[in-house]
Amino acid sequence: MSKQRLSKKFWSPNVNKLTPYTPGEQPLTNDYIKLNTNENPSGPSLHVRGAIIKSLKTTGTNLRLYPEPESGDLRKTIAKYHKINMNQVFVGNGSDEVLAFCFQAFLCKRGTLAMPEITYSFYPSLAKLFDIKTKLIYLESDFSFSLENLNSSISSVIFANPNATTGISLTKKYIRNFLIANPDKLVIVDEAYVDFGAQSCVSLIKNHKNIVITQTFSKSRGLAGIRLGFAIGDYNLISALNKVKNSFNTYPVDRLASCAGIASLKDKNWFESNKSKIIENRKFLTNRLEKLGFKVLPSQGNFILASHVKAKATTIFSELKKNKILVRHLSNNKIKNWLRISIGTKSDCEKLLKVLKTLVLVN
Amino acid sequence: MSKQRLSKKFWSPNVNKLTPYTPGEQPLTNDYIKLNTNENPSGPSLHVRGAIIKSLKTTGTNLRLYPEPESGDLRKTIAKYHKINMNQVFVGNGSDEVLAFCFQAFLCKRGTLAMPEITYSFYPSLAKLFDIKTKLIYLESDFSFSLENLNSSISSVIFANPNATTGISLTKKYIRNFLIANPDKLVIVDEAYVDFGAQSCVSLIKNHKNIVITQTFSKSRGLAGIRLGFAIGDYNLISALNKVKNSFNTYPVDRLASCAGIASLKDKNWFESNKSKIIENRKFLTNRLEKLGFKVLPSQGNFILASHVKAKATTIFSELKKNKILVRHLSNNKIKNWLRISIGTKSDCEKLLKVLKTLVLVN
Repeated sequence: MSKQRLSKKFWSPNVNKLTPYTPGEQPLTNDYIKLNTNENPSGPSLHVRGAIIKSLKTTGTNLRLYPEPESGDLRKTIAKYHKINMNQVFVGNGSDEVLAFCFQAFLCKRGTLAMPEITYSFYPSLAKLFDIKTKLIYLESDFSFSLENLNSSISSVIFANPNATTGISLTKKYIRNFLIANPDKLVIVDEAYVDFGAQSCVSLIKNHKNIVITQTFSKSRGLAGIRLGFAIGDYNLISALNKVKNSFNTYPVDRLASCAGIASLKDKNWFESNKSKIIENRKFLTNRLEKLGFKVLPSQGNFILASHVKAKATTIFSELKKNKILVRHLSNNKIKNWLRISIGTKSDCEKLLKVLKTLVLVN
Repeated sequence: MSKQRLSKKFWSPNVNKLTPYTPGEQPLTNDYIKLNTNENPSGPSLHVRGAIIKSLKTTGTNLRLYPEPESGDLRKTIAKYHKINMNQVFVGNGSDEVLAFCFQAFLCKRGTLAMPEITYSFYPSLAKLFDIKTKLIYLESDFSFSLENLNSSISSVIFANPNATTGISLTKKYIRNFLIANPDKLVIVDEAYVDFGAQSCVSLIKNHKNIVITQTFSKSRGLAGIRLGFAIGDYNLISALNKVKNSFNTYPVDRLASCAGIASLKDKNWFESNKSKIIENRKFLTNRLEKLGFKVLPSQGNFILASHVKAKATTIFSELKKNKILVRHLSNNKIKNWLRISIGTKSDCEKLLKVLKTLVLVN
């Protein structure tokens, strides 16, 4: 990209105020062990590839046709999987897009949004984009947060569960109690990482009209490359998302993504076995890192947040990169000496540990 | 969908003001001749399917990885194709999304947007979504429009070229003269249909900093099912689009869509031959409809707008539907007695004409 000074003559004044999200590095070569963006080390189910290839071979010319705008087949499959109604499901181009529609549909001009001071850093970017006032919920010393002391000016709350970056989760019971005690606050629970051990709130939508849950195919289903996410909530909430979607982009989910999503939801064996492997590797990695002098937060995601007693996070980050291992160092001051490490295959974990061992022994 | 009264308790007040776009019907069965959403009757290039299948077979597990956020390979291919720089290209999830980002990046809080009274009806939906003041440019009696009399309060102009619904186009020279005479107005030219005979403005971006052009893979490339579109303009404009995109959804273009787009741009033979066939069928259909007593506007799109001297458009629409042929009837008062008919294969055109012949002879 050019380094010339930008002319902003035709920019909306809003653009100057944005703080775009910075994604983890996506190298163009395959020679890195990529533990920086919480991708699945071994996805997706082979059924997904099979289903896409079959669809291209049998009805390939259908690519000439727009997708069905309401993505009925995919929504029906998600609804069946989660034992809910299809009009309680909204699908989009990745859960990032679904979250963006939630911000537009429920948070714009509706008071103040509360979020943990450390969480998925896309939320502050979206809040800036849609000019939404935010209030931070400060973390405890153990990196957990509570929803106890939100004052009455807060109209909505968003958090990831388990929380992004920390991996720490709230229980379903805790969230249900909050919904009951705060019927006028809307709660958005981002369950991107829920399949790796936390409790999902999906069943709460039956009795609670003030919760929206988002999930993604990018993590536990190994389909980050296909861009597919969804929201689950009461029909009254899903309707608002549809109105926004149909004013923005009528067909956000393409035909192949829809086909991939359906095939993925049907392969329960792959899903269960992949999930177990990741949870097992998380235990293994946590245990070994602790032996090397790392503090590791108790994560229920497919990643851990770790900090070494002596070695600096930025040093470890750079040294790992030299050794072709990418992990994530986030800019938030509170975690500046921590690294977020995605759970890779057993072999990825072992290679990482081997390099770290040399590093921390030197330090 | 439920008919119950909606509870709007958690809706942003903005949602109530929206006027979502209504797409043409997308039937779930294949027994219709679909001439209602300007899809390509015979796309895409077989190379596209081949490229996707090859990519799934050789690097299929890459679906587990996020796409490269800047879609570098695809942008490079588009840039090469259009003989421009890759930093003058922005890609998105269909040109609808690209247009939405343009509205957000260039039109929000930047004065009044002018658009023809009849044009792509997504523009008014987007204007409502982003709370943008609009002014209509009224059409002449021949359904053309001019940019002569825009007053100084207008900061931006958007139109499709050729125009949506009418198929009538402006010349590149006319648009260039407008850009020169109005250096403070931003012009967004939606070239969704440009490949079917109108003049593209892409070469104007070299000397003019006040034009953005959007194009799509959905029409002339037969890839509506894949959702892929792009914008071309000066780097200063593309930068604003990137800032908005990265505050909304970092990876809007998935790995398979990117692969499809690249393969499509490389198959020039398919592109040229498909285009010629559509232009030829357009001539054929126009000529035959005129013989049946239809007025047909001089279209440069892959569709025509037609009105019969006697038979009512709504009657023709319903009778065609009974005969399993879908065309589009739009709600705008000025064209309430017109039908928009996509150009299908020669055989589609002949089947349509056969039914119409019976209808208009009866009327």
